[in-house]
Formats: sequence, C-alpha cells, structure tokens
Amino acid sequence: MIKKTLVAGFAVLSAVNASAWAGPVEEMMETDRAFAAMAARDGVPAAFAAYAAEDVRMFPGGSQPYAGRDTLIERYADFPNDARLEWDPVEGMASPDGDFGFTWGRYVYTPPANAEGASVGHGKYVSIWRREDNGDWKFVADIGNSNPDPDAED
Amino acid sequence: MIKKTLVAGFAVLSAVNASAWAGPVEEMMETDRAFAAMAARDGVPAAFAAYAAEDVRMFPGGSQPYAGRDTLIERYADFPNDARLEWDPVEGMASPDGDFGFTWGRYVYTPPANAEGASVGHGKYVSIWRREDNGDWKFVADIGNSNPDPDAED
Repeated sequence: MIKKTLVAGFAVLSAVNASAWAGPVEEMMETDRAFAAMAARDGVPAAFAAYAAEDVRMFPGGSQPYAGRDTLIERYADFPNDARLEWDPVEGMASPDGDFGFTWGRYVYTPPANAEGASVGHGKYVSIWRREDNGDWKFVADIGNSNPDPDAED
Repeated sequence: MIKKTLVAGFAVLSAVNASAWAGPVEEMMETDRAFAAMAARDGVPAAFAAYAAEDVRMFPGGSQPYAGRDTLIERYADFPNDARLEWDPVEGMASPDGDFGFTWGRYVYTPPANAEGASVGHGKYVSIWRREDNGDWKFVADIGNSNPDPDAED
C-alpha cells in the first residue's frame, strides 16, 4: 500500500514536468518488448491482436494500408505458422502529456523452412502507441521497411 | 484583436476536453500539405530541411535509419534535381494534449526523365509531428514503404 502511494506520487510530480519525464518512453519500450516476447511465445497473430488498438492503422509494405483490429486479425490469420518475426525496440519518444508516442526498432523475418526462394529479411519499424483509458498501451499505427542485409559489404 | 481572443478561448475550452478536439489533427494535416507544397515549389531537399525537427529520426527504405536534421540535409543533397516526390496526407491522430501526433498519406515518386530503368514509385508514409516551443509543428520521424502499382490488376 505504501509502495502504491509512492508510485502515484511520482506520477503526479512527473505530470507537472512532463517533458522531463522519461517514464512514458520506458513504458512504451517495455510494452514493445512484451509484445515481441508474446510473438515469440504465442505466435505473431496472437501478439498483434493483443497489442493493437481497436482503431489501429496498418501500413504493410507492398500492400495497401488498412484500418481496424478486426481486419488486422483477418490478415494475420495468413501468417505462416513456422515463420518467425522477431524485433527489438531501439528508442522511443513521448508526447508532453505522456499518453502518446512511438517506438522504433529493428526486425528480422525468418520465412518457413520450406518456403522456396524466401530469405531472411531485415528491417526497421515504427510503432505509434496510445495509452488507453484503462492505462494499457496499444499501438495505433505500425509501419516498417527493409534494411540492407547486415552481411552486405556496403 | 477580437478574433484572436475568440481563437484563444476556443483553444482553452478544447484543452479541457482535449480528446474531442479535432484542432491538432487539422493543424498537422495542414502542415503536411504545406510541406508537400513547399517540396513542389522549392524542391524536396529544402522542404525536408524546413519541416524536420532538430532531433528527427529518419527511416529510409532499403537503408539504415539515421538521426538529426543536419544528417538529413546532407542525405537530401543527393536528391535528383529533376525527380519529383509528391504526397497528400489522408488522416491524422493527435495525443490528448494536442502537441504530438501523426499524419499518414500516399506518395508518388517520379524519377528523373533520364534515369534508365527507373519507374514511378507509389507508396504510403507516416510522419510523426511535435509542436515545438514556438508553436510550429515539425516532424520527428518519417517512414514510408511501397504500395502496389495502382494500374496492377490486384
């Protein structure tokens, strides 16, 4: 109980000087890491369904953008069972009120072993996060694109 | 003078019920349109230099991410003089305090007429915006990826 009060006190103090508060960035980074851990444990479709906001905007490379968590769930049903999508956030930035912001990081996509001609894909992503009324962070937008192969000479 | 006071009054009322305020989204959309208009008028390098935040994060497709307006200016010095990058924002979303958010839209890249083998590229982008201390909106992150050719059958 004492601990809870101290934490609440810290949050109130921080809100007064929100721009200096590193808290929300760390919260978003931590949420993004939990999102990646869930993808590794329970699969990419389950993790995207769990962390997407109801009104999410998705920007898949090479396809048209689409909106909504329900559509996201339909699309991710096609994600190959034995493919892997792994990622790690690098940095984040939050709004002054600490309720909105983004993380970015790097991803590695490993196609299914039996996928002919498919190779490991490297890239970066930006996820935009919003703190929902219940306090949970959900992503409201997700977009990525390719990086050079890390083994390439240039 | 009266007009100015009314506008300020509206802003104060809106701050009380910030989540219902469409104002910051419209401001970001308008800034993004002005950014695109400047690119058409003064060139892409000048426009990116003018609208980028000092601490911008850039996520160019097929290249490593980089940080900072100074680096952005160096990179955009290579943008071909007679290439065109045109875009239009479609939607935006703002933080509850109205000082942070994003726009997304569609772009068309037209390579220089003399560029062998280059074709018109279609895509989408996400720009993340922050209201600076002087009230100007600057983008703190910019990322895009390809869309299917609009003439493609699927």
